[in-house]
Amino acid sequence: MSAPVTEPSPTTIADLAAGPALAIAAAVRAGRVSARAICEAALERIAAVDPKLNAFTHVTAVRALAEADAVDAARAAGAAPGPLAGVPYAVKNLFDLKGLPTLAGSKINADRPAADRDATLVERLRAAGAVCLGALNMGEYAYDFTGENLHAGHSRNPHDLGHMSGGSSGGSGAAVGGRLVPLSLGSDTNGSIRVPSSFCGIFGLKPTYGRLSRARSFPFVASLDHLGPFARNVADLAATYDALVGPDADDPALADIEALPALPELERGADGLRVGILGGWFARQGTPQAYDAVARAAAALGAERTVELPEVERARASAYLITMAEGAALHRDRLRDRPADFDPAVRERLLAGAALPAAMVVKAQNFRRWFRDRALELFSQFDVLVAPSTPVPAPRSGQATFVLDGREMLVRPNIGIYTQPISFIGLPVAAAPIPGGGPLPIGVQLIAAPWREDVALRAARALETAGVAYAPEPVV
Amino acid sequence: MSAPVTEPSPTTIADLAAGPALAIAAAVRAGRVSARAICEAALERIAAVDPKLNAFTHVTAVRALAEADAVDAARAAGAAPGPLAGVPYAVKNLFDLKGLPTLAGSKINADRPAADRDATLVERLRAAGAVCLGALNMGEYAYDFTGENLHAGHSRNPHDLGHMSGGSSGGSGAAVGGRLVPLSLGSDTNGSIRVPSSFCGIFGLKPTYGRLSRARSFPFVASLDHLGPFARNVADLAATYDALVGPDADDPALADIEALPALPELERGADGLRVGILGGWFARQGTPQAYDAVARAAAALGAERTVELPEVERARASAYLITMAEGAALHRDRLRDRPADFDPAVRERLLAGAALPAAMVVKAQNFRRWFRDRALELFSQFDVLVAPSTPVPAPRSGQATFVLDGREMLVRPNIGIYTQPISFIGLPVAAAPIPGGGPLPIGVQLIAAPWREDVALRAARALETAGVAYAPEPVV
Repeated sequence: MSAPVTEPSPTTIADLAAGPALAIAAAVRAGRVSARAICEAALERIAAVDPKLNAFTHVTAVRALAEADAVDAARAAGAAPGPLAGVPYAVKNLFDLKGLPTLAGSKINADRPAADRDATLVERLRAAGAVCLGALNMGEYAYDFTGENLHAGHSRNPHDLGHMSGGSSGGSGAAVGGRLVPLSLGSDTNGSIRVPSSFCGIFGLKPTYGRLSRARSFPFVASLDHLGPFARNVADLAATYDALVGPDADDPALADIEALPALPELERGADGLRVGILGGWFARQGTPQAYDAVARAAAALGAERTVELPEVERARASAYLITMAEGAALHRDRLRDRPADFDPAVRERLLAGAALPAAMVVKAQNFRRWFRDRALELFSQFDVLVAPSTPVPAPRSGQATFVLDGREMLVRPNIGIYTQPISFIGLPVAAAPIPGGGPLPIGVQLIAAPWREDVALRAARALETAGVAYAPEPVV
Repeated sequence: MSAPVTEPSPTTIADLAAGPALAIAAAVRAGRVSARAICEAALERIAAVDPKLNAFTHVTAVRALAEADAVDAARAAGAAPGPLAGVPYAVKNLFDLKGLPTLAGSKINADRPAADRDATLVERLRAAGAVCLGALNMGEYAYDFTGENLHAGHSRNPHDLGHMSGGSSGGSGAAVGGRLVPLSLGSDTNGSIRVPSSFCGIFGLKPTYGRLSRARSFPFVASLDHLGPFARNVADLAATYDALVGPDADDPALADIEALPALPELERGADGLRVGILGGWFARQGTPQAYDAVARAAAALGAERTVELPEVERARASAYLITMAEGAALHRDRLRDRPADFDPAVRERLLAGAALPAAMVVKAQNFRRWFRDRALELFSQFDVLVAPSTPVPAPRSGQATFVLDGREMLVRPNIGIYTQPISFIGLPVAAAPIPGGGPLPIGVQLIAAPWREDVALRAARALETAGVAYAPEPVV
């Protein structure tokens, strides 16, 4: 039995609830605040602020309070309430939450039966003591880089409500960047964790392909889908990852690309990580703010050498081909039965995928192996590679074109030019926000060798310690 | 140093050369005959008989005699000349043979440079003491079930020259069935080892997907291609497999389907293998001779229970979709640059594949995993499953249609109805000839759990011992 909690002042509770996850967990574990009080404060802030951000599609208040009470009861009974005790979080609405239909950003899925069990990653966060506050807005069926959604309305950028949150995990980025919750979960097929991280000024982790269980989540492109966490600081991100990781018998077979090899560990000097800067493709088509963010990150990490990956444009094209083919295969029946219930733009993309010749996709898959081997070679020289996350900070909501390298280009398909080639081959990436180069933040990718999330997180932590990477205050 | 060889009579040498591989090897090792004498006898028989069979596209006489002399020299020097010492063999012309262009049944590949190194499996047979007599006729680019070839002419059935040898390893089947060589190598993507075995009345082994190295062979459908041996008895087949097996660093990555799991070994009674009969799809669309062959094999193996695989027709359709897509991707440049140099029928099949929607192939790949799991479940009850290899014995050369279950069907695409669903999921199969049910032989498939080639071969040996399976005398 532990001593009963004497709650601090409402202001202190609200500040705590809007602060770091590990500070909440420490306070709850120590009995300085109850999980219920934190949960109520978070629900209040969501009620007040989410109408501006439109990050949530479903607030699970009853569930959250029950989970918070269970944490408090465990503590009172003398049990260990977990490393994330009482920490509020929410999940992209493609994760199963028991009792809710799993929307995956669509109208169509609202007619599905409610999930009868939580996604594995949700179960793991609950086991760690975290408290689930709801389901988050996302681009329809995750086929999106903007965070815009025709059915639920657009999620908004917490640093300028007139700008995009980034997609497809836009609600996950807005909720964490807007300080509604300290943690969220999202998915990344071509950039959907790294893009909202960049636009919303937060940290995100896209782990190695296959690392985190996808059991009971609604998929998009099986051979490219990754799940992962968002947070506002690296310690929270790493603690969440620790709670999520580990094998899961319910995970669908990872048959879609071969498992990435674990590379031998490098001999490291006392000076720590060897960091390279990705040049070529990754130093073109961006804005000065993107290049500046990479330069500042590189300087803070002591990176001097620029290296190139070959055929990056082809890698991005191949990622699109595989996305189109697998996406169309997944949605074929819905396209036939309920075409009018799709966002027309998403429907057109999926239909184009349905007409894609298989021989092209076979070529793309063959190329994937070649490109992966070229990337793996770089990790004999470097522990981490730095690249921009996005070519631009968040565009305005609804913005259709931007100018990159003097060329007017469509916004929507080109937000992911730097993220797609990396997720294409499943490498782990910590996305770190680099504010200060303009009115809106922008992020960088810290790319590590397969299965070395620890190295990517360590680089992110070095940037944080140097004061280069941090989540700026939102305007909400 | 060993005693010099005193050669037996020319008739004895010719009989030995036309007999079992292991009898040749034993005689060579014992110094009762030289490898050179065997090689010369085999070359003489090829010169006399191959004009009727058209099994060879290239006889490598100079190479063969040099290899034979090397075996004899090794024996004379007291070295062990290998388990296949002096045994003549030949390979489907998609295996690299140093100094020859690797035709893969095509006209186009004749313009490629000569191979600068043998295929791994050829190197292994040479290391075992076997002697390579040449390259064998095959269907163009292995996209064939008939053994017919527009460029090199059709290979002929050794039991009736007016009938098909079976494809695509038609030359491999005709050369062994016609007693030109005791051993040959072929490939099987959808049935191309099992079909010529059935039509030519010989044994063949299609190993587990991934078991034998494909290094330096010309591929067709990477996710379905298997290489394997042919022989006229099970001991020869097993000895050849023993010489071929083992890891190979040059083998292209087996990324195309996930590696099949090794299943736990069954508890077996004293009465040996538990054998099931595949019903449903495998008991329809065949001729009485095919069903009779299965019944005789089942009776000899003590099999009584019939089991069904679900959705076999879909498995076959999926195998075709994957074949079309990967085949079209492989040949795309050749289709564009040299369309007139293809067999028009092959070109049409490849072009149809080039137009196939990717989403359909993605569905086929997803279904493959499901179907594989259903098949693996059967191996908790059975060690071996028996099914026909082909619905009919060899059709007449050029025959366009046949009647199956009262329905007229095209011959070419329907020869593989029973083989395609099995290679689709990579299970090992020993193909055994069951003569006596008609003027031409027909074969059965003995299908084992992944990586249990030993079990498939043991079932084949049991049929051989029972006198049910054997290679009949050819007419040439």
